[in-house]
Amino acid sequence: MPQGKYPLLDTVKFPSDLKRLDKHQLGEVCREVRDFIIDEVSENPGHFGASLGVVELTVALHYVYSAPYDKLVWDVGHQAYAHKILTGRRELFANNRRYRGLSGFPKMAESEYDAFGAGHSSTSISAALGLAVAAKMKGEQRQVVAIIGDGSMTGGLAFEGLNNAGIEKSNLLVILNDNKMAIDPSVGALNEYLTRITTSPAYNKVKYEVWQRTARLKAIRLFFQKTIIAIKSSILRRSNLFEALNFRYFGPIDGHDILQLVSTLEMLKNIPGPKLLHVLTVKGKGYKPAEENQTLWHAPGTFNRETGERAGAHRKEQPPLYQHVFGETVVELAEQNEKIVGITPAMPTGSSLNIMMEKMPDRAFDVGIAEQHAVTFSAGLAAAGKIPFCNIYSSFMQRGYDSIIHDVALQNLHVVFCLDRSGLVGEDGATHHGAYDVAYLRCIPNMVVAAPMNEVELRNMMYTAQLPHCRAFSIRYPRGNGVSTRWRRPFEEIPVGKARRLRSGRHIAVLSLGHAGNFVEQAAARLEQEGIFVAHYDMRFAKPLDEQVLHEVGASFARVLTVEDGAIVGGIGSAAAEFFAENAYHVKVTRLGIPDRFVEHGAMPQLQAECGFDADGIYRTVKRALHPA
Amino acid sequence: MPQGKYPLLDTVKFPSDLKRLDKHQLGEVCREVRDFIIDEVSENPGHFGASLGVVELTVALHYVYSAPYDKLVWDVGHQAYAHKILTGRRELFANNRRYRGLSGFPKMAESEYDAFGAGHSSTSISAALGLAVAAKMKGEQRQVVAIIGDGSMTGGLAFEGLNNAGIEKSNLLVILNDNKMAIDPSVGALNEYLTRITTSPAYNKVKYEVWQRTARLKAIRLFFQKTIIAIKSSILRRSNLFEALNFRYFGPIDGHDILQLVSTLEMLKNIPGPKLLHVLTVKGKGYKPAEENQTLWHAPGTFNRETGERAGAHRKEQPPLYQHVFGETVVELAEQNEKIVGITPAMPTGSSLNIMMEKMPDRAFDVGIAEQHAVTFSAGLAAAGKIPFCNIYSSFMQRGYDSIIHDVALQNLHVVFCLDRSGLVGEDGATHHGAYDVAYLRCIPNMVVAAPMNEVELRNMMYTAQLPHCRAFSIRYPRGNGVSTRWRRPFEEIPVGKARRLRSGRHIAVLSLGHAGNFVEQAAARLEQEGIFVAHYDMRFAKPLDEQVLHEVGASFARVLTVEDGAIVGGIGSAAAEFFAENAYHVKVTRLGIPDRFVEHGAMPQLQAECGFDADGIYRTVKRALHPA
Repeated sequence: MPQGKYPLLDTVKFPSDLKRLDKHQLGEVCREVRDFIIDEVSENPGHFGASLGVVELTVALHYVYSAPYDKLVWDVGHQAYAHKILTGRRELFANNRRYRGLSGFPKMAESEYDAFGAGHSSTSISAALGLAVAAKMKGEQRQVVAIIGDGSMTGGLAFEGLNNAGIEKSNLLVILNDNKMAIDPSVGALNEYLTRITTSPAYNKVKYEVWQRTARLKAIRLFFQKTIIAIKSSILRRSNLFEALNFRYFGPIDGHDILQLVSTLEMLKNIPGPKLLHVLTVKGKGYKPAEENQTLWHAPGTFNRETGERAGAHRKEQPPLYQHVFGETVVELAEQNEKIVGITPAMPTGSSLNIMMEKMPDRAFDVGIAEQHAVTFSAGLAAAGKIPFCNIYSSFMQRGYDSIIHDVALQNLHVVFCLDRSGLVGEDGATHHGAYDVAYLRCIPNMVVAAPMNEVELRNMMYTAQLPHCRAFSIRYPRGNGVSTRWRRPFEEIPVGKARRLRSGRHIAVLSLGHAGNFVEQAAARLEQEGIFVAHYDMRFAKPLDEQVLHEVGASFARVLTVEDGAIVGGIGSAAAEFFAENAYHVKVTRLGIPDRFVEHGAMPQLQAECGFDADGIYRTVKRALHPA
Repeated sequence: MPQGKYPLLDTVKFPSDLKRLDKHQLGEVCREVRDFIIDEVSENPGHFGASLGVVELTVALHYVYSAPYDKLVWDVGHQAYAHKILTGRRELFANNRRYRGLSGFPKMAESEYDAFGAGHSSTSISAALGLAVAAKMKGEQRQVVAIIGDGSMTGGLAFEGLNNAGIEKSNLLVILNDNKMAIDPSVGALNEYLTRITTSPAYNKVKYEVWQRTARLKAIRLFFQKTIIAIKSSILRRSNLFEALNFRYFGPIDGHDILQLVSTLEMLKNIPGPKLLHVLTVKGKGYKPAEENQTLWHAPGTFNRETGERAGAHRKEQPPLYQHVFGETVVELAEQNEKIVGITPAMPTGSSLNIMMEKMPDRAFDVGIAEQHAVTFSAGLAAAGKIPFCNIYSSFMQRGYDSIIHDVALQNLHVVFCLDRSGLVGEDGATHHGAYDVAYLRCIPNMVVAAPMNEVELRNMMYTAQLPHCRAFSIRYPRGNGVSTRWRRPFEEIPVGKARRLRSGRHIAVLSLGHAGNFVEQAAARLEQEGIFVAHYDMRFAKPLDEQVLHEVGASFARVLTVEDGAIVGGIGSAAAEFFAENAYHVKVTRLGIPDRFVEHGAMPQLQAECGFDADGIYRTVKRALHPA
C-alpha cells in the first residue's frame, strides 16, 4: 500500500483504534475507507454500491458500539466491506471473494466481529433477536444491532422478525438502511410508504424550521439534533408502521452525516426495548458513476476508477449468458402464447426478466424480495389460466419451497420455474451456490426437473414447458455463459423425460445433467485419444427419468459415472442409483457433483476442480474407475 | 337427515339459492348452518371452532358475491365448512375428512367453488392477488376475496402478499378474520396492534354515540352503518398499518352481525383497488364449551353435543402421543442443561411445548405462525450459545427450509429440530403429510437426520442431540401414539449414525427408519411362522448412514427392502441404494414408503395400507420379493 494514501486509516486496524479518535476525525476516516473500497474493488471485483452507501453508518456503528461484545448483524451482507476493513481484515482485502481469501459476506468462522453470517436477505432481525434474547437471559448488557435495507425489509422473514421482536422487549436496534434499492429499484407498498414518510410535509416543515434557526450555529445544531429526532418521532408515531409493531421509531436521518449518526446512535444506546432507526443513504455514495447507475454498479466487475469505464463493457463476442437466453426467450414465447407471464422477486436485472418488463410491462412482475409470494402469486395466476415463468435463483428458491409443494405441485398447476444460478456460482460462495434444487425438487410429485446442457436446450425446454400438456416444470441452469454464439434457433419440443445419447462407447457410461455435460464431452474426447470409449448420455431430466436409457445402461455397463453441478446427495446420481438398485442391475455407480459439505467461494473453474467435476476431474475419475489402483 | 330440522337450509344447496332469500332470513340460515356443523362434527370429528366463527361471514359472502365467478380464497381452510355446506356439498359432509370423502380443506379438484386450495396458513393474499391480477389482465369484472385470520397474518408470506398487492391496484378484498386465535391464542406485535385499534377510545366513542342515537331505530341504524364505517376509517386511516401498505382499511365490524356484514360487503364491492375489512369474530361462536376453551375445541374429536363432553377425554390407558413424550422430555433435559430453550411457531398445544412454556416461561418461545423466523431466531440463539429445540411439523418446516440451510447448517450451529407430524398424518391429508423431510434434509451438509422407532428412542435421540459434540440435528417422529406405556427410562446416548439390529434372518434384509419399524416387526413375526426369516435393522439415522451395517447387508443379501413413513424419492431407501450402487453390491432394493404422488386424506391405517408399508403390505412385499410371480 502506498504510504500516506490512507494516513488515518493506517492507524485504525480494529474498532478499538477508531474509538481513540475524536469524532471530528471520523469524516476523514470515512473518506479514506471509501477511497480504499474504490481502489480495491476497481481492481478485484465485488459488491460495490451497497458498501459505499454505508461507509458513514459503519464508521459510526463501530465508533459508538463495542464490537465484538456488542453484536452487529448485517442483513444480506454485501454491504459489509467497510465493516471488514475496520475489523482487522484490511490487509486481507485484496483477496476478497478469491479462492481461500476473504468471503464477500460476513462469516462467523472468519471473524469474531461477524456476529452472524449472511448472503440471503431478510434474516438479520430474526438472528439479532436471537442474540438479544440470549443476552437478556444471561443478564448481559450487550447491545445488538441489525442493519437491514429497505429491499430486504419486504421479505416476509423480516416481518416475522419484527412481529416477534415487538413483544420480546429485548434491547434490539434495527437500522433501516433506506436507499430505495435492492439490486434493482425497490418495489412494493412498503417502499412507497417509506418514501411517503420521508417526504411528508409535517416532517419536512419541522426539519426545515429547526435547521433554519440553527443554520450558522454548528454546536447548537448538533444540540438540536436530539430534539429534531424527538419531534419527528412524535409526529410520525401515530402514522407509523413500525410503531404499530411496538418498535419505537426514530428518523429518518441522513446516513451520510457522520456526526448526526454518532450522536443519534449514542442516544439510542440508552433507550431500552425494540427500536428502529430509519437512515437515508445513497447506494454508490461518493463515486459518481455508481450513484448515477446504481443497478449497474451493484457489482460492476473491474473498472478504471478515474474514467469509470467498466472492463466488462467491451467484451469480445462470446456465448451469451444463460440468463440472457432466458430473458430473450421468455419474450419470444410470450409473443406467441398470450397466457405467459413473467415473475421475478427483485431480480429483473439478475434474471434478465427486465427485457420482458420493458417490452411487456403488463405481463412481467417484479414482486420485491419475496420468494414465497413469487411462487404462490404464480400459483394464483396459474389457477386463473395464466402460465407464469417464475424465475428465482436456485439458492433463493429454498425460500419458496413450501409454496412449490403446497400451492403449485399439489394443485397440479401449470407454473414454469426457471432456476437461474443453479450449481456452483463462484465468488459469491456457500450462501449462493444452488446446490440442492435437484434433491429438493425431485421428491415432489408432479414436478418435472430439467436441466439444459446448452442454450438451445434451454430454449427448447422453455418452449416445451409452456405447452398445454405440461404442469409444474422446473428448469435449472447455471450462472455464466453457455457454449455457442448461434443459439437463436427455431423451437423444438423435447419429449419430457427423454435423454439424448451424445456419444457411444463400451468402457463406461457417463450420465450427465445440465451444463456439466460439456465437461464430460471434453474429458471423453481426451479419453478417446487414449483408447477409452465413453458412452455419454445427457439425461436432460432428473425427473421423470428416461428409464429406457437406464435399462440400456444397466444391462450394458458394469461401471457408470454420473456428473452434475449439484449436490451429490439426492441428485441425478441418486436417481440413477435408485433405479439400478430397484431393477437389480449390478453396476458400480460413481457420482460426481457437489460433495456433501459446504463449498466456499472462488472462481468457478477452481471450485469445479475442487469438486472434481471439471473436465480434468472427470477424466481422472474415469481412469480410476476403469483401472483402480 | 330428519325432515324439518333445517327447513331453510334444505332449500339452499348452492349460493344461487341463498341469493333468492330476503336478507332478513339470513340469520335463520346462519343458525341452521351452525346447528348442522355442530351435529356433524360432534359425530364425525373435524375442525370445529374456526368454522363456527365464520358462519355469518360465509353466509354474507355467498349472499353478496357470485361464486364461483367471484373467487373466495380461504386461508388455511379449516374454517371452510360453512362454505362447503353452502356450495353443494352438504350431503357429502358426513364423509368429511374420511377416506375418499370430502377434504377437510378447500380443494380445487373437489369443487369449482374452491377457488384455491389450502391447508397451510398465510397463502391466501398471494393466491388471491394472482387471481385478481389475471382477472384484470383479461378485463374481467370478477371480484376476488381473501379471508385470512389474524394468526395467519403473522406469517411472512401474508406480509409479502400485502406488500405486493398494495401496488398492483387490482380489485382485491382482504378480510381479516380477527378472533385473536391461531390454534393457541395469537401472539406477536401485530396481534397487540389489532387489539389496540379495536379498543381505541376514538373508535369506540364514535361507535357508541352513533349506536345510542339510533338505538331503537333499526332501519336508521342500518342506514348509519355505512357512515360508521366511513368515520371509523377516517379516524384510523392515519394510524393504520394496512393503510401504510396502500390498502384502504374498513372496520372493525362485528363478524356475527349478518346484516352489517351484508351491507358492508355490498358497499365494498363498489370500491376499486386493494382494501381490507377487519372483522371481529369469536372462535367457536354459538357453542358454549367451544367459546370457553377455544384451543381445546379447535379440533375436539367426537363429542356429545348436549353435554359438551368430548369422547377423547376418557381414553383408556395407552401409549403416549409422541408429541407428549417430546413435551415432557424437553423439560427434563432443560432442567439438566441450562442452555436448552424451546421454540414453536404457534403450536404450543400441537407440539406439547406448552408444558415447557408453563414450567419455564422464560425459556420457551411461541413466535407466532412464522416458521422461517422460528428457525433463524433459533440460529441467533445458538450463535449466542443456547441450544434451541425448535419444534415444527414436518410439512410446515418446508417454510423454514432456507433458514435451515443458510442460517443453521452452513454456520454449523447447534440447533435441534424436532419434526412432529412426520410421515402420513391421516385425516388432514395431502397438505399436512410430512412426506419430504428426509429428502429435503438429507442433502444438507452437517445435518443429522434421525427418526425414533419408539418413545424411548425419541427420548434418547433428544438427549443425544443436546450433547456438546452435536450441531444441526433433526429428529422426525409421527403424529399419534407410540408403542409403550413405560417410556420414561433413564437417558442413554445413541451413537450418531449407528443403526441397531432387531432381528437376524437369512432370506431378506429389511432396513427401516422410524416408527414404521414396528410394522416391520409385526410382518417379520408373521413371516417367521411361515419359515421366512427377515433380518431387520432399525437404521435410526438417514444421515449419517451406518455404513458398517450397509456393508454387512450388501455383502450378505441379494434382496433388501427399505421401509419408511416418508417419500420414497430421496428417503432412506434412496440413501441405501446410493450406498449399494457406489460400493458395487449386487442387491435388488425394494423401497416402501410414501409413493411419488400426493396421498389424500383418511385414517392412518387406511393410508398406510394404500401406500403399502403397513404390516400387511410389508408381509406381502417380502413374499413377492422372495417368490416373484
